[in-house]
Amino acid sequence: MMLPYEIIFKKRNGQSLERAILEEFVQGFVEGRIPDYQMAAFLMAVYFRGLTADETTALTEIMVGSGQRLRLDCGRETVDKHSTGGVGDKISFPLVPLLASCGLAVPMISGRGLGHTGGTLDKFEAIPGLTTDLTVARFLDQLSEIGMVIAGQTHDFVPADKKMYALRDVTATVDSIPLIAASIMSKKIAEGVRHLVLDVKTGAGAFMTEQADAEALARTMISIGMACGLNMRALITDMSQPLGQAVGNALEINESVDVLRGRGPADVRAVTLALCSQALVMARVCSDLEQAEKMLLEKLTNGQALSRFLELINAQGGQAAIFEPEQGYLPAARYQHVLTSTRSGYVTRVRPKEIGLAVALLGGGRMRTTDTIDPSVGLTIHVKCGEYVQAQAELMVIYYNHEDRLDQARPYLTNAVTIQDEPVSSPILIKNVIAS
Amino acid sequence: MMLPYEIIFKKRNGQSLERAILEEFVQGFVEGRIPDYQMAAFLMAVYFRGLTADETTALTEIMVGSGQRLRLDCGRETVDKHSTGGVGDKISFPLVPLLASCGLAVPMISGRGLGHTGGTLDKFEAIPGLTTDLTVARFLDQLSEIGMVIAGQTHDFVPADKKMYALRDVTATVDSIPLIAASIMSKKIAEGVRHLVLDVKTGAGAFMTEQADAEALARTMISIGMACGLNMRALITDMSQPLGQAVGNALEINESVDVLRGRGPADVRAVTLALCSQALVMARVCSDLEQAEKMLLEKLTNGQALSRFLELINAQGGQAAIFEPEQGYLPAARYQHVLTSTRSGYVTRVRPKEIGLAVALLGGGRMRTTDTIDPSVGLTIHVKCGEYVQAQAELMVIYYNHEDRLDQARPYLTNAVTIQDEPVSSPILIKNVIAS
Repeated sequence: MMLPYEIIFKKRNGQSLERAILEEFVQGFVEGRIPDYQMAAFLMAVYFRGLTADETTALTEIMVGSGQRLRLDCGRETVDKHSTGGVGDKISFPLVPLLASCGLAVPMISGRGLGHTGGTLDKFEAIPGLTTDLTVARFLDQLSEIGMVIAGQTHDFVPADKKMYALRDVTATVDSIPLIAASIMSKKIAEGVRHLVLDVKTGAGAFMTEQADAEALARTMISIGMACGLNMRALITDMSQPLGQAVGNALEINESVDVLRGRGPADVRAVTLALCSQALVMARVCSDLEQAEKMLLEKLTNGQALSRFLELINAQGGQAAIFEPEQGYLPAARYQHVLTSTRSGYVTRVRPKEIGLAVALLGGGRMRTTDTIDPSVGLTIHVKCGEYVQAQAELMVIYYNHEDRLDQARPYLTNAVTIQDEPVSSPILIKNVIAS
Repeated sequence: MMLPYEIIFKKRNGQSLERAILEEFVQGFVEGRIPDYQMAAFLMAVYFRGLTADETTALTEIMVGSGQRLRLDCGRETVDKHSTGGVGDKISFPLVPLLASCGLAVPMISGRGLGHTGGTLDKFEAIPGLTTDLTVARFLDQLSEIGMVIAGQTHDFVPADKKMYALRDVTATVDSIPLIAASIMSKKIAEGVRHLVLDVKTGAGAFMTEQADAEALARTMISIGMACGLNMRALITDMSQPLGQAVGNALEINESVDVLRGRGPADVRAVTLALCSQALVMARVCSDLEQAEKMLLEKLTNGQALSRFLELINAQGGQAAIFEPEQGYLPAARYQHVLTSTRSGYVTRVRPKEIGLAVALLGGGRMRTTDTIDPSVGLTIHVKCGEYVQAQAELMVIYYNHEDRLDQARPYLTNAVTIQDEPVSSPILIKNVIAS
């Protein structure tokens, strides 16, 4: 037994804590014996002092132990992808049906958006009728039946993470690599998946703006995952500009369907194929990445991946029929506003945070967790960093429903794209692959 | 307006905060709008990032502003002493009547003991009948009438400090120099005193074990005090061994009376005279330290200082008559136990923390704030660092009332004194004087 005070004191002084001590503290916090203010002080001490690899793994396992760990007995290899989040990141939608069409089971538990980043669940729910609020029983049934799910957390899913995250969110202790890693990995381990491929974003629109930090986060997550028996790999991918053209919930679903139709923006296609290829090799469906990519391209061109996506939508109550005619898409917002270039030159920046915030202000995201979302608004961006544009060229189209919302969003958008005389090279999309 | 989150975030990132922002945060905390957990995270961020001189002064003034600042219209120069605390530190008792006998007013607001350090109020209350719990009106009346008071805080005295300290105490954020300095100085500024002499202890039994830290704390307090219009000076004094011979509430009062009778241990006398001399020069009662010391020695030998002490005891309801016969003292505990030396040699250590803890375990202090105190127990130490002792020499006498309490305390005492073959020099008692 160590007093909560002594635990905070030790961590504050840079000493490492044994698993039993950490467990006492975290479990005490979850059960209400250790007050918020002691956990807040502890988390701030962790922000400054860090956690060792052993502490981080122990913390993750303790968090997993605070709730239920799913048993996925679905007769297939289970695989999931986790992205650290970015603007225009809709990879989950092409990825889940693609991997399912290759014979894998994908039990994806995902989250909602806040601030400048959108959330997978919010985007998925842009499809009329669709729910991501599944019971554990329905989640497991659907996984057995069709080999894929995209759902939210159930109520008792990693309660320690839920309670700690809520506290970190209001005490400026979110951006700590071991705490981020433990939070993400606790949920993936509780999900019960066998193979996990990480998409760790880096750049202006990412949580980790520096590549070195993104790699450190990836390595920490891989180390936790491996200690807990998961097969892990990570891609470090670019988030210096938005991914794809579409930002906004319905617009991103439409772009995902494009990808599943074998079309879609090159960067979304490339990241999707890279993540899926890794997953297929990890799960030994394919022996190498080349073979994996060939299989994936086949699933995109022969329509199997799209048909699996429609099956997923149907299973979760969504109106898949919307996408069934050859060119069917979700309807966008009532009004459009085109932003054009005031000069010719090279596009040197397309600022993802400003664009993400603008979409949130249009009504497509949340500034507070209680905000409701208008799925139809958003924008499409028609330029990428490194491209040459003429004066008066179309930079983006804003889709909106209310003039006052457009007025709120516009200041963020007029400065979102920078055009200069000097050419710049395009950012490298897939910056690194980390396997252990 | 800055969100509490942003205030924590800025401080966490090492940025400094403007006065208005700090005020919003501290005032919000006092009024309950800012929850404990946000203040706890902020305090831990301050522990790691520190506060600038401006921030520290601003914080102190904001804390003062959370309550009432006393107006001491007593017609005399007001002076006070603050000690950062140590074992056997009873300087307040000879100091207050000595300074009063030299024509100064001494409105001392003091505290209670916890852990290994005793508290001035606990010691003073060892005198039967005496109270330190005075209303503000009575405090001011007594100061006007007899020019001295030793009392506790009233209920609304610096509420911000009370609430912040309670939180620091359970979140391992006590030992931060700017937070300590702001806490001490907020109370002294609220007390309304004009001249303040600090006794900052250093060594194994002090809060600041390193002299450099003690000096940094002294300089921080002086800088705050001067910014708030106080006349400030600090002595850095030794706490590598207990001060004086007596440790324990009644025993320390008796030793203080010895000093006021012109006797007492050399170190207690020396520190008392040094602090009082500084105060007399600061308040321009004397033009230099030599003249001041001469005046003080006269007050000790002519009985005026003692008679002022008895006047103080009377004013606060205590039975001064106990000390009135030529040799009168407070009674000590029922039983005595003598610890002798197992060998001859030089005394290299007399460990103050162990001795302070032993006295607390005998019943003379508190391990919890709710513990009650037995004023009669304690011990007298008959050796000082650097002295040569024979085998079987008397090291200390333990005064106790219960055998089981003695058994609890003894393990701390048997190792408290170290005797070795190699001679060591005595520690320097007054290590530094800091004036600005």
